[in-house]
Amino acid sequence: MRPSARRRLVILTEGQFTIHHAKTALGVMRYGRDEVVALLDSAIAGHNAQEIAGADPRYDVVAVATLEEALQQRPDSLLIGIAPVGGRLPATWRPIILAAIRAGLDILGGLHTFLGDDPEFAAAAREAGVRIVDYRRPPERMETSVGRRHLPGKRVILTVGTDCAIGKMSVALELRRAAVEAGLSGVFVPTGQTGMMIEGWGVAVDRVISDFVQGTCEFLVQEAEALGDWIFVEGQGSLDHPAYSCVTLGLLHGTTPHAMVMVHKPGMAEHDFDHLPGRSFPIAPLPDFIRLHEQVAGLVAPSRVVAVAVNTSLYPDEADARRVIAEVAAQTGLPADDPFRFGGTALFAGIRAAVERLDPDA
Amino acid sequence: MRPSARRRLVILTEGQFTIHHAKTALGVMRYGRDEVVALLDSAIAGHNAQEIAGADPRYDVVAVATLEEALQQRPDSLLIGIAPVGGRLPATWRPIILAAIRAGLDILGGLHTFLGDDPEFAAAAREAGVRIVDYRRPPERMETSVGRRHLPGKRVILTVGTDCAIGKMSVALELRRAAVEAGLSGVFVPTGQTGMMIEGWGVAVDRVISDFVQGTCEFLVQEAEALGDWIFVEGQGSLDHPAYSCVTLGLLHGTTPHAMVMVHKPGMAEHDFDHLPGRSFPIAPLPDFIRLHEQVAGLVAPSRVVAVAVNTSLYPDEADARRVIAEVAAQTGLPADDPFRFGGTALFAGIRAAVERLDPDA
Repeated sequence: MRPSARRRLVILTEGQFTIHHAKTALGVMRYGRDEVVALLDSAIAGHNAQEIAGADPRYDVVAVATLEEALQQRPDSLLIGIAPVGGRLPATWRPIILAAIRAGLDILGGLHTFLGDDPEFAAAAREAGVRIVDYRRPPERMETSVGRRHLPGKRVILTVGTDCAIGKMSVALELRRAAVEAGLSGVFVPTGQTGMMIEGWGVAVDRVISDFVQGTCEFLVQEAEALGDWIFVEGQGSLDHPAYSCVTLGLLHGTTPHAMVMVHKPGMAEHDFDHLPGRSFPIAPLPDFIRLHEQVAGLVAPSRVVAVAVNTSLYPDEADARRVIAEVAAQTGLPADDPFRFGGTALFAGIRAAVERLDPDA
Repeated sequence: MRPSARRRLVILTEGQFTIHHAKTALGVMRYGRDEVVALLDSAIAGHNAQEIAGADPRYDVVAVATLEEALQQRPDSLLIGIAPVGGRLPATWRPIILAAIRAGLDILGGLHTFLGDDPEFAAAAREAGVRIVDYRRPPERMETSVGRRHLPGKRVILTVGTDCAIGKMSVALELRRAAVEAGLSGVFVPTGQTGMMIEGWGVAVDRVISDFVQGTCEFLVQEAEALGDWIFVEGQGSLDHPAYSCVTLGLLHGTTPHAMVMVHKPGMAEHDFDHLPGRSFPIAPLPDFIRLHEQVAGLVAPSRVVAVAVNTSLYPDEADARRVIAEVAAQTGLPADDPFRFGGTALFAGIRAAVERLDPDA
């Protein structure tokens, strides 16, 4: 009964299908290998996800109000499509998940709350003969970093950014695609639950015990080096994030990338996260922030920011977007583009040239 | 049967009583409130810990070869006195711990491996009616940082450093003592298992899920602010540590200290950790590293390095130590002293003056 290859997914976002909160849903729809047969979200029932997420054909999925309607599309799995702060399950979703289990669907979750450890869900899953997959469950391997060197010929690129949830995963995926299209062996390293759902391996490093974050990242790159030459590691958080910078630095010092790609979203003034009223945490100025990344990376291994991936989603007009990209390029002296919107070919070409100039096998 | 106040401890270090590996044992002997009645370590049986750790009367404990000998001192608890990389229990210690449980001792551990979760230990403890305390067990609270401000009148000082295991905890404890002696209400915030064993509260932040490190540190400072005004947070790792910098940055951005004290051990050329042969990770040059700490801290909240705590243990001659301290002061332009060796009074006076100049309630 379990699908061996492509799954048929219902994605649950109940009441939270927005660009910001549904990044798991959107990522899986856009980049995943599985077929998304329905979106379960009564707040937008009858609407097509394209109305919210944009005209990309991969978002062409209609939302339904109830699990019963979704079941008419013969799904085999229910995927939890949000990534809330703190990673807990909204209480109202419990009956939906339970009903999905009883209807014979596998449950695919990426929350900090492990659904498979919930006694009620676990008992129901045993009875229904379905699996509960918690992508954020950390690996058994608990090892600190040992200062591993990259193998000769390997090129490790980490996406970093000026905020959370602005496209570090998407940029890494677009660059991997461009590398493959250029005839290279490209590897994407998932470091969050959405990337893992898309790619089928990886570790949600924000769930790893902090003592082992760097050792885990080092190990992920080692695994990736066995899969190909051009390795694009999905970054997390930002180095200046009041809540998540620890994860960001663990990735930077654990993966010791040859180069970084800075992801930036012009038009955002402040970090967007659940913080106390009256506080505000501005987005860092780009040139200083780039220099600081190189300094901080260099504490462990030399690395350069070689390109800026510009998230132009706040500039719907294409001419505006092109202008903003040109401004970022001028401001930083680096190749800049929006690979999510305009494809990764041009940006990857710039990155490739810059990385080879860095003499990565030295 | 359980002691309500002061415990009588046997500290187990079996074969690992060195300055580097036994930092838990040494910290508890020097700063703890409990009485250390024996050191269980057959490799140094018959020797006094002072022979290895120095003439401090608090190290005046004789090592014994067997648990039976240790039991003659009527201990009530066995404390695991090492902090190995990766935090796992050496296999040869299992029979000793089991025998201690059966002899009616509580077990106090700070390993990543939770002794209380071990079925054999847990069953034996139930039978013997003793407790197993795993200080590294993370709190149930899983919250991300919310950008809390410090209360007016509070002064938060974080110890940072140029390497692991060079005295960040001891410096914080010495400075707390100096603050109390100056008539202020001083609080020590334990962020590692040894500090927790000494102080009786805190969280081993290196065991916390990385997503919650900053939220946990923020919360620890909030708790500390309820206990007093001058708050000394025990730092962990170093910002340039290939294996542990993630924990260090989580503390820095989670506690948002008004000021930092840089702990430095002259005479060390490289980071001392278990890494692959052929690699070396140099200790950072002090002035640049200080500036970088201020820059990185400032990404979330302004902070200054206001003093250097110099670990002069590689300079046994006191005149040499004084010279090295003077060199550090000249090199950095900051107050410098070895509070572990010479007491914290002078260094705290310099810190206090500098912190007030920073206008911490602004």
